Amino acid sequence: MLKYVRISIVSIFCLISGRSIPEDYLLDTQKIITISINDSTAYKRLSYLCDTFGPRLSGSRNLEKALDWIISEMKADGFSKPRGERVRVPTWIRGDESLQLILPFKKNLSILGLGGSVATPKGGIKAEVIVGSSFEELDEQGKKVRGKIVLFNAPFTTYGETVQYRYKGASAAAKYGAIASLIRSVGPWSMNTPHTGGMGYDKNHPKIPHAAITMEDAMMLGRLHDRGERIVMDLRMNARSVADRWSRNVIAELPGSEIPDEIVVLGGHIDSWDVGQGAHDDGGGCVAAWQAVKLIKDLGLRPKRTLRIVLWTNEENGGRGNMSYRNEHLSELKNHILAIESDGGVFNPRGFGFTGSDEARDMLTSISRLLLPIDANLIFKGGRAADVAPLNDEGVPVMSLKVDGSKYFWYHHTNADTFDKVDFIEFNRCVAAMAIMGYVVADMDDRLPR
Amino acid sequence: MLKYVRISIVSIFCLISGRSIPEDYLLDTQKIITISINDSTAYKRLSYLCDTFGPRLSGSRNLEKALDWIISEMKADGFSKPRGERVRVPTWIRGDESLQLILPFKKNLSILGLGGSVATPKGGIKAEVIVGSSFEELDEQGKKVRGKIVLFNAPFTTYGETVQYRYKGASAAAKYGAIASLIRSVGPWSMNTPHTGGMGYDKNHPKIPHAAITMEDAMMLGRLHDRGERIVMDLRMNARSVADRWSRNVIAELPGSEIPDEIVVLGGHIDSWDVGQGAHDDGGGCVAAWQAVKLIKDLGLRPKRTLRIVLWTNEENGGRGNMSYRNEHLSELKNHILAIESDGGVFNPRGFGFTGSDEARDMLTSISRLLLPIDANLIFKGGRAADVAPLNDEGVPVMSLKVDGSKYFWYHHTNADTFDKVDFIEFNRCVAAMAIMGYVVADMDDRLPR
Repeated sequence: MLKYVRISIVSIFCLISGRSIPEDYLLDTQKIITISINDSTAYKRLSYLCDTFGPRLSGSRNLEKALDWIISEMKADGFSKPRGERVRVPTWIRGDESLQLILPFKKNLSILGLGGSVATPKGGIKAEVIVGSSFEELDEQGKKVRGKIVLFNAPFTTYGETVQYRYKGASAAAKYGAIASLIRSVGPWSMNTPHTGGMGYDKNHPKIPHAAITMEDAMMLGRLHDRGERIVMDLRMNARSVADRWSRNVIAELPGSEIPDEIVVLGGHIDSWDVGQGAHDDGGGCVAAWQAVKLIKDLGLRPKRTLRIVLWTNEENGGRGNMSYRNEHLSELKNHILAIESDGGVFNPRGFGFTGSDEARDMLTSISRLLLPIDANLIFKGGRAADVAPLNDEGVPVMSLKVDGSKYFWYHHTNADTFDKVDFIEFNRCVAAMAIMGYVVADMDDRLPR
Repeated sequence: MLKYVRISIVSIFCLISGRSIPEDYLLDTQKIITISINDSTAYKRLSYLCDTFGPRLSGSRNLEKALDWIISEMKADGFSKPRGERVRVPTWIRGDESLQLILPFKKNLSILGLGGSVATPKGGIKAEVIVGSSFEELDEQGKKVRGKIVLFNAPFTTYGETVQYRYKGASAAAKYGAIASLIRSVGPWSMNTPHTGGMGYDKNHPKIPHAAITMEDAMMLGRLHDRGERIVMDLRMNARSVADRWSRNVIAELPGSEIPDEIVVLGGHIDSWDVGQGAHDDGGGCVAAWQAVKLIKDLGLRPKRTLRIVLWTNEENGGRGNMSYRNEHLSELKNHILAIESDGGVFNPRGFGFTGSDEARDMLTSISRLLLPIDANLIFKGGRAADVAPLNDEGVPVMSLKVDGSKYFWYHHTNADTFDKVDFIEFNRCVAAMAIMGYVVADMDDRLPR
């Protein structure tokens, strides 16, 4: 690996000599890649975070204990002012839940209630099930839906499209008088793996319980329905939303050596759903951002501008962390040079998405050539990841780390989003990509234009 | 697809002309492939079998209801003498089961008790857990194991090697005084998916409860153990073995037109574990064998020898079906020309494994060229699949269908072995491969030599 990296660096040097990209950073880039690819500090930290605290839902003790540990480790790392900035977060508690198929035969089905769902009545909901594959099919059923459970058996197309059944399915079904709604888990692949995630209610319709079943069971129920079988289920959920609780955004810095008021943000969201370990979503992104800045510090590189690690809370079910960060730091935002978030898993990085001016994009495209040795040199359109989008609304140029996303939605919001799914080399390449991009933008003579 | 198949057939014709292989069967082969690849009869039957009866553990009503339906369908197909041959089968009932991690933190873990395991005492077993990755590591622990739960966190190498922890783990742990044993599920990939399967007890040691946890949880517990954490769990199982019950091997025939006493067997095992739908293991193999003979019948092909479908019961936890078939048909076995089983999933077929004489192998290798249009023309060493092995012991040449096995052990014995995992084209290619091999051996002038 090292040999490969070194040869590539030399090739890049030859390739780019004479062009208008920051040749000054070739040596530092080589150092960052060489060290990051083989260092196990961050990988071990991610493992410890995942195994020790478990999933980190907003409002949970797991999350707050994880934040305590992170802040304490950041202090040990020697960062400037590691701290938690307090944020009130919505708090939803899953409680017990079960779903039993009663007719045409008995079977216990795996479910995950969707975040924000109300409970069933205490005795559960036992009702006939109407199966449809789309909102349109529901509309066609019309009055037949009253008093029944609706199952949206929508095949996965894109996340953005299919997730609509998770967000809006309950109210779409309640509009026709359904008493509960179920969705086929939002993902392209399953090994009997239900997916949770956020949902909302339209205030014009009654709030009904809303949960996800596995792809396998949804497809089976779809087939039973197509064969004309009468389907009856018993759904029990005692999920509840309680009063907002305190959480924190975690912040730590490597102060700029010349222009400390100018800030480059690197971060991820530290909360997760209440299943699995939140490893790819987004413990990995948080630890990668943290390690990227630690690496720069440990290498003795002191960029001109400040590098700030921000680990936002409550991305999954409220976005209160990113709104709070924007509000609390509003006066600083004119000097936020760039904000980079990793929230697509820590698989092999391919580059960064970017939202900002064309002039800035050209500059970042030049810098991105430094990432060619780790094949992460592409600049895509669009960098408005959830937690940096509010900063972009205020004019801050933003980036999101782009990775090989082919398996991201396999694990997303499931009990399978666990540390074992994170590959050592791939994760470290994410660290290297974040470190190089953050470092060069923080250190180069020119301020990244807006 | 059709065009491709036709062109290939022509190519094969050119390739093989002048050689000593059964050119007489090129036209019939083309018919079989053309029809089978596009026919949905068997695929729909597999779907109905999976969805209507669910998993089919020996001794269960599910299995017997599935057998009733199969026999009735075979009668409707017009086969000769579809029947069930009664077999006493061991009967194990899973009951409720749960596993909770108590220390270092609370977490409910997914488990599947292993088939044949005894129950825990009524109040469960709450004990410290010793984690090791091999039998050797257990031996090193020695006396420390007494009174504890042992977890074998053995990484998957090959099925044959890793399954030893499932078969023998309980007694290996009980030898040192363990009070329960757990294994990392036997498979190369997991999305929080536990795998069940058979296990046994060595009569020299106490019978202790034995269950599988997911790869994810086993790896996590391994990491916690490596960090020196004390691990405590609460295991509850009320599994029990009850008196043997009646089941059946299902048999149906297409009688030979000239030498009906000579028999070519095509089959699979119709029982499954009590999870998922037993789709790849081995509902798919059964329906493929059944459809292979139906196809030959429906095409009006009347091979000289008898084609017999045999769907063995109780392969998973006793092998009583295959022993009974051998015993009940002992006098016929000298005229069993070949017995072919499909029990490796109905993925893309690659060919057949074979156990028999070199002379027979040469002949089958010639025939296998007819399978080139569906890329299933390889003859591998070794055809002793579980249900045909006892026939081979009596001198019958045996084959097992060989398929792309890359995902077989992802689903094997899990809730993810469901109909949706069976691909229409791949399944139909299995049907075609079984049909062609069975038909040619049953019809060719020469009797396959022993």
